[in-house]
Amino acid sequence: MLNAADNDFENLLLQHLPAEVLRPVEPRYAEEPRGYHKGLVGILALPRTVDEVATLLRCANEARVGVIPYGGGTGLVAGQVIPDGPAPLVLSLERMNAVRAVYPDENVIVVEAGVILADVQAAAREVDRLFPLSLAAEGSARIGGNLGTNAGGTGVLRYGNTRDLCLGLEAVLPDGQIWHGLTRLRKNNTGYDLRNLLIGAEGTLGVITAAALKLFPQPESTGTAIMVVPSPRAALDLLSLGRSQVGEGISAFELMNGQGFDFLTETLPDVRQPFDTPPDWCVLIELGLNGGLDAAEVLENLFVAGMEAGLVSDGLIAQSEQQAAEFWTVREQLPQANRMIGSVSSHDISIPLRALPDFIEDGLAKVAAIGEFRVNCFGHVGDGNLHYNVFPPKGRSRNDYVDEREALQRAIHDLVHEVGGSFSAEHGVGRLKVDDLERYGDPAKLFAMRAIKTALDPRGIMNPGAVLRLPPQ
Amino acid sequence: MLNAADNDFENLLLQHLPAEVLRPVEPRYAEEPRGYHKGLVGILALPRTVDEVATLLRCANEARVGVIPYGGGTGLVAGQVIPDGPAPLVLSLERMNAVRAVYPDENVIVVEAGVILADVQAAAREVDRLFPLSLAAEGSARIGGNLGTNAGGTGVLRYGNTRDLCLGLEAVLPDGQIWHGLTRLRKNNTGYDLRNLLIGAEGTLGVITAAALKLFPQPESTGTAIMVVPSPRAALDLLSLGRSQVGEGISAFELMNGQGFDFLTETLPDVRQPFDTPPDWCVLIELGLNGGLDAAEVLENLFVAGMEAGLVSDGLIAQSEQQAAEFWTVREQLPQANRMIGSVSSHDISIPLRALPDFIEDGLAKVAAIGEFRVNCFGHVGDGNLHYNVFPPKGRSRNDYVDEREALQRAIHDLVHEVGGSFSAEHGVGRLKVDDLERYGDPAKLFAMRAIKTALDPRGIMNPGAVLRLPPQ
Repeated sequence: MLNAADNDFENLLLQHLPAEVLRPVEPRYAEEPRGYHKGLVGILALPRTVDEVATLLRCANEARVGVIPYGGGTGLVAGQVIPDGPAPLVLSLERMNAVRAVYPDENVIVVEAGVILADVQAAAREVDRLFPLSLAAEGSARIGGNLGTNAGGTGVLRYGNTRDLCLGLEAVLPDGQIWHGLTRLRKNNTGYDLRNLLIGAEGTLGVITAAALKLFPQPESTGTAIMVVPSPRAALDLLSLGRSQVGEGISAFELMNGQGFDFLTETLPDVRQPFDTPPDWCVLIELGLNGGLDAAEVLENLFVAGMEAGLVSDGLIAQSEQQAAEFWTVREQLPQANRMIGSVSSHDISIPLRALPDFIEDGLAKVAAIGEFRVNCFGHVGDGNLHYNVFPPKGRSRNDYVDEREALQRAIHDLVHEVGGSFSAEHGVGRLKVDDLERYGDPAKLFAMRAIKTALDPRGIMNPGAVLRLPPQ
Repeated sequence: MLNAADNDFENLLLQHLPAEVLRPVEPRYAEEPRGYHKGLVGILALPRTVDEVATLLRCANEARVGVIPYGGGTGLVAGQVIPDGPAPLVLSLERMNAVRAVYPDENVIVVEAGVILADVQAAAREVDRLFPLSLAAEGSARIGGNLGTNAGGTGVLRYGNTRDLCLGLEAVLPDGQIWHGLTRLRKNNTGYDLRNLLIGAEGTLGVITAAALKLFPQPESTGTAIMVVPSPRAALDLLSLGRSQVGEGISAFELMNGQGFDFLTETLPDVRQPFDTPPDWCVLIELGLNGGLDAAEVLENLFVAGMEAGLVSDGLIAQSEQQAAEFWTVREQLPQANRMIGSVSSHDISIPLRALPDFIEDGLAKVAAIGEFRVNCFGHVGDGNLHYNVFPPKGRSRNDYVDEREALQRAIHDLVHEVGGSFSAEHGVGRLKVDDLERYGDPAKLFAMRAIKTALDPRGIMNPGAVLRLPPQ
């Protein structure tokens, strides 16, 4: 069993660390963005160096105190809040927020875990490079949290997940050992892939303190369009058509639907919508091209070819950066509108592309069989990643449907599992999906995960209760 | 301690498996391609299904018999041969050589571990897709071995290592549990990254039996050129220039030097060389472009811009597929020429790009301080990956320099370590570099590796002696 981060533990920490590493507990460290879950905070530590992180973990390990590595607090699966049990040490990386080095000629940036994602993007832009990780919470999410959760976002189609953007890590193991793995190398076959094991482990195997990240050339010409498509299947065919025309040049390909536009009208009327009558389905496409190609012209060609093939019925190509930004605002405000409507059940799922159009249909039928709901299904369709969210009928509140929530989740996740999809595409497991992982996860993989967790964190201090449910040590 | 794969063990296997899974031992399974190292083979098994693999491992684990997962046998670090100790079970995947499925619309292919790499490439081409993993041994290397060693090759610059090309795995854990992880999903954040842990573990954590791999659009227009550069630094500057012009369009960027051309002249005079007088340094560039761009034209522009910037002094742009193939033959025959000359010491290293030009200079000085040698330094310079090979002076044999080998290796690897490089960029650790890993590896990472190995393979049956030296169980 773990012990609480109490006065005795605080005294232990103060024997080994300067007092200014600890801070009075503030409520925001006990909250998650949707406000559904509250967490316990015994002690709040804000270390400034990897050595201080190492000391904190060594002490926590010795005292058997649970530790929550804390980034920007924007996670959506309650990985950052412990609802009950012994109060943990919350270890926020926010003061480790230095850009340690930028190597434009190597397309590498080295940042500490506490750097805000938007600041990583800005530091790359300053040297005429692109850091392509991009997501709605980028103004407050910190890169350590993005790494810990292997964050996704809109750039995955072209540039991959956070995992794919990382070359090296500095991290502290649960017993306080520091791994100095901040390599900038693209090729390094010297042993097990500890980097990818820590990435996406959601803080359960150690604390990431810094990372060497890949940068990319800024595309010379970017273009943004919204195209109306008759169906999700047509959206995928349009993606294939686009890829055959421009190869890797498609930077984003986002599906939106009429329900989402209605929600925007209802909750955020100031958001300027692209069409007077919201289409049932449309895609937001962004291209980033080099080699002297003109992105607007290529989009025009894709639009014409799409019309000819019956894949596109209407569309707008942004004529200015401002208009492109407006298109993106529509996409990025969808989650906020959803939140204001209040979902009964929300799902961050991925589906093999081939099965995706049928899944959307079948999912609607499953939901309708449970009751009268509104579904907003949108997202990173090029990756097969849908945000599939179920809402009460107009005029009713999510609180009226508490009893249906479990049936909805089960029906949708069962269907996802049936077609070879994932019940968590990009948000992770956290605490909200531990049951799903036990239900749908491969038994051999779960066995291996538990063996690894026990081997690296035998006392179970790291983010206890997240990802895996372990027998008491 | 492990037991030998002897008659008793064979009898155990025959209780659980059909007799045709076992085969009489053939000498080739005890050899590696350069012929420097010989291995022991107790029993040879050629399973046909993942269930047979699982049974083999379950029996081996029960009987504490070592197992070598065997692919095409082309590895260069003796990961596939056990020189001494109890004779192992050699488990060759060669009969698991089915392409299980191709999903061109999803850009995914699912293959069994025993499929030869060239056959994966061919299956992709058949559906107008590209599987970009490409290396000299592709005609005999098997994809399971490529995955086990996280193989590199010439396509890494654009498409990444084997690791980056894999979406999902089917694998057998050391105790015989089967992990059914053949997902085709691009996004799947449901627990620890077991996939990347097995990839590059060189068969020490389990046996990969099948993989879901990424495919890519075939570039519409490809072009190949050889450009003479005044120095490695100029080569890297030319790469930067090229990237600013064509973004991700550079598919390969290979450095070659005069010594390599001399070796070709000496050993393989039939290979048609591009220049009458071999240049000191040149680069082989391949572009693969879409969006209506003409690769030959873009290469022409790059050549002109390179000349103007003083980065290029001469060059040839292939005027036909045949000529492009001739350029590649030169590059691909370099290892064979090296083998025929016979290196005293050879190094598969990677260096941060910024430090690479100085490293080449400093390395020559270190080598010269030990004795009179010839150095052939070439390779995937865009990734910072050099094959840095040291040869005896003309007319002498490698056997005359056995005593210098260790000093050379130490001097070069020390220098690599000093500048933040890797002593094994793409070949892996195998058995030849276990000492290097102990010397240069990060202690916390080694600790974590040993903990993981012990957790997943407590009896130490999987490829014993490769990668890690463990205390006897």
